Amino acid sequence: MLKVVSSEEAFEIISENLTSVYVGTERVSLGDSLGRVLSEDIISRENIPAFNRSTVDGYAVRASDTYGCGESIPAQLDIIGEILMGEGADLSVGDGQCVKISTGGMLPEGADSVVMVEHTDNSFDSLCLVYKAVSPFENVTAKGDDIKPGATVLRKGTRITSRHTGILASLGIKEVSVFMKIRVGIISTGDEIVPAEGETPVGKVRDINSHILSALMSEKGCKCTGYGIVKDIYDDIYDAVLRAVKENDIVLISGGSSAGTRDMTAGIISSLGETYAHGIAVKPGKPTIIGKIDGKAVFGLPGHPAASYFVCLRFVVPLINMLYGIKDNTRAVKSKILRNISSNHGREEIVCVKLSDEGAEPVFGKSGIISLLSESDGYIIIDRNREGLRCGEETEIHLF
Amino acid sequence: MLKVVSSEEAFEIISENLTSVYVGTERVSLGDSLGRVLSEDIISRENIPAFNRSTVDGYAVRASDTYGCGESIPAQLDIIGEILMGEGADLSVGDGQCVKISTGGMLPEGADSVVMVEHTDNSFDSLCLVYKAVSPFENVTAKGDDIKPGATVLRKGTRITSRHTGILASLGIKEVSVFMKIRVGIISTGDEIVPAEGETPVGKVRDINSHILSALMSEKGCKCTGYGIVKDIYDDIYDAVLRAVKENDIVLISGGSSAGTRDMTAGIISSLGETYAHGIAVKPGKPTIIGKIDGKAVFGLPGHPAASYFVCLRFVVPLINMLYGIKDNTRAVKSKILRNISSNHGREEIVCVKLSDEGAEPVFGKSGIISLLSESDGYIIIDRNREGLRCGEETEIHLF
Repeated sequence: MLKVVSSEEAFEIISENLTSVYVGTERVSLGDSLGRVLSEDIISRENIPAFNRSTVDGYAVRASDTYGCGESIPAQLDIIGEILMGEGADLSVGDGQCVKISTGGMLPEGADSVVMVEHTDNSFDSLCLVYKAVSPFENVTAKGDDIKPGATVLRKGTRITSRHTGILASLGIKEVSVFMKIRVGIISTGDEIVPAEGETPVGKVRDINSHILSALMSEKGCKCTGYGIVKDIYDDIYDAVLRAVKENDIVLISGGSSAGTRDMTAGIISSLGETYAHGIAVKPGKPTIIGKIDGKAVFGLPGHPAASYFVCLRFVVPLINMLYGIKDNTRAVKSKILRNISSNHGREEIVCVKLSDEGAEPVFGKSGIISLLSESDGYIIIDRNREGLRCGEETEIHLF
Repeated sequence: MLKVVSSEEAFEIISENLTSVYVGTERVSLGDSLGRVLSEDIISRENIPAFNRSTVDGYAVRASDTYGCGESIPAQLDIIGEILMGEGADLSVGDGQCVKISTGGMLPEGADSVVMVEHTDNSFDSLCLVYKAVSPFENVTAKGDDIKPGATVLRKGTRITSRHTGILASLGIKEVSVFMKIRVGIISTGDEIVPAEGETPVGKVRDINSHILSALMSEKGCKCTGYGIVKDIYDDIYDAVLRAVKENDIVLISGGSSAGTRDMTAGIISSLGETYAHGIAVKPGKPTIIGKIDGKAVFGLPGHPAASYFVCLRFVVPLINMLYGIKDNTRAVKSKILRNISSNHGREEIVCVKLSDEGAEPVFGKSGIISLLSESDGYIIIDRNREGLRCGEETEIHLF
């Protein structure tokens, strides 16, 4: 029983049926957190900075003491001491007083601003002449200016990048709770498939999919296990699927590009669990199967490497993001298409593009052509309700 | 002796003086190559596909035998056999003959195209009726269509992503030669700096830079070693720099935000090697020092974490790309600025932005504000010859 769905229906199927896959959590050190996905909100328990901090070298003052001063009528303040870098300020600045301070130094009590050293003259022993007025909090990062206690600084579902490690370190966080890496089992099927390494007998084809799918899933934060190349034999595929489902959260079965093998894969998924879609109206990638076995997501992917890659990018990666709770992972940008593209009405189409200053140049090729992938900068998705794109049209480019 | 340079001059200094840093190479397996940078061109020694391959299920024919056929006048061809998947084709298709073939199957000699099974009727035993003409190579990926022998499929300086693993696997490449990871030594200086983990005594500040710089350099493919937090003491910094230079290719010394400490860092670099710039006219990041010791690149970075991060992104990452031979690593996209931005004429300025469908919203803040970094999607660089940007202006956004 064939059930070809649209890509919208496929997304619905995935979010309704497959997001119940359970992903555990673990605690990792800040140093090991890069690339992992937060499984908790990070809430500050502190003020950052923890104290009023000078952003310049100069004199900590009461701003009101400088009002009205200028080049010709300097304010005269008594220097009552110096704040040493990294030391608490046990001085208190009163009316007509000031304290020497360095960039990063802690403002003493009573002071509310800092006069830059360039705007002072301290050649009179303990007297400081101020030639430029400051307003309260001028040249100061106030306590809590950056982060206040109770503030949610990072949300669950954030994939940690270098930019996030800064905020975690600033809060003194040693460890964070992250999602366990989603385990993806990868099975290559096909009588014609041989291991990628080495020579290929006549009529055979190298196993590209195991490599490209494993690399893509690794990039998206998954832990991949290969289950080798399985011949187009029902029992062999059945056994491999059973084993992969047991040991993983998501199973990808690539190959079986011919209708007969596709049906076999679909039959195996149905016999062990449920099949929701047998074909998606998308090019490349039509022979895609979506199913579930024992609460685990199972995808039957096309045999052609580029098709397999795109189906994975278009349907499996969104599932991974849903499971990790990653909200917005798009990198779409707008660009002009430099050529007419015709597409099949009723079927969504993915076309690779190369970007230049002029716009996006479509890179055409049959779905088996793997070299196109490495030459492109991104891809466009032509809606199934469109009959193509006109040259010059502004289009959303999904960057790789 | 202060020598403040423009960012253009800084790039010149870097490419003229620091690109002689030697980076070795090593061989890694395809599975370990993800994220590494090729140190050799990858040249195909094969045709991919290795044979004329059917892209559909159907019958391999001579196209000329189908010319003029149609729904009412089918061509009649003798079925002389079947190509089994993954088998060599030892049949030869002559005039008026055809051979059954599956998607991915190897075209037999004599055949130049494939008629889709949907356009045939084979209910007449060994006779096949063809209802639609095909042209030569229709429904076929010809031998070498994807890659030909001698073709350079990947260039030296390519950072390997999942998309590249496909082409490497398709060529049967087991191992590739990649650059050794560039070794980056990171020193945090400052009397006020304490380890990020745990409580912070009054007046002290956590060491954010070690974490954020190490994470950023790791993301760019480097191997980082931390040399801890060093107090603002000449001999201590001297010793740390000496050790870090010995064990790394690039050394980053962050901190020393006050003029005195900056001069000390510059003095140490000068006494051990050479200082090319003492300050870059860029905001944030003015107190940046560029030098070289024993053929290794040495950067003095600002103490403020966000400033330190941006200087690293703007000046150290390009050096890393130059050393790896990575040509184009830009991810700049165009977007409308949603607000006026004023900037300092004569000084390049970096401003974080958040992207939405409407455009790019600038995120303002003092350079010490670390929370801005994790909230932004990218940044803009305002040229030193501009006085700012006008609301609505199309601007290049550098995505993180």
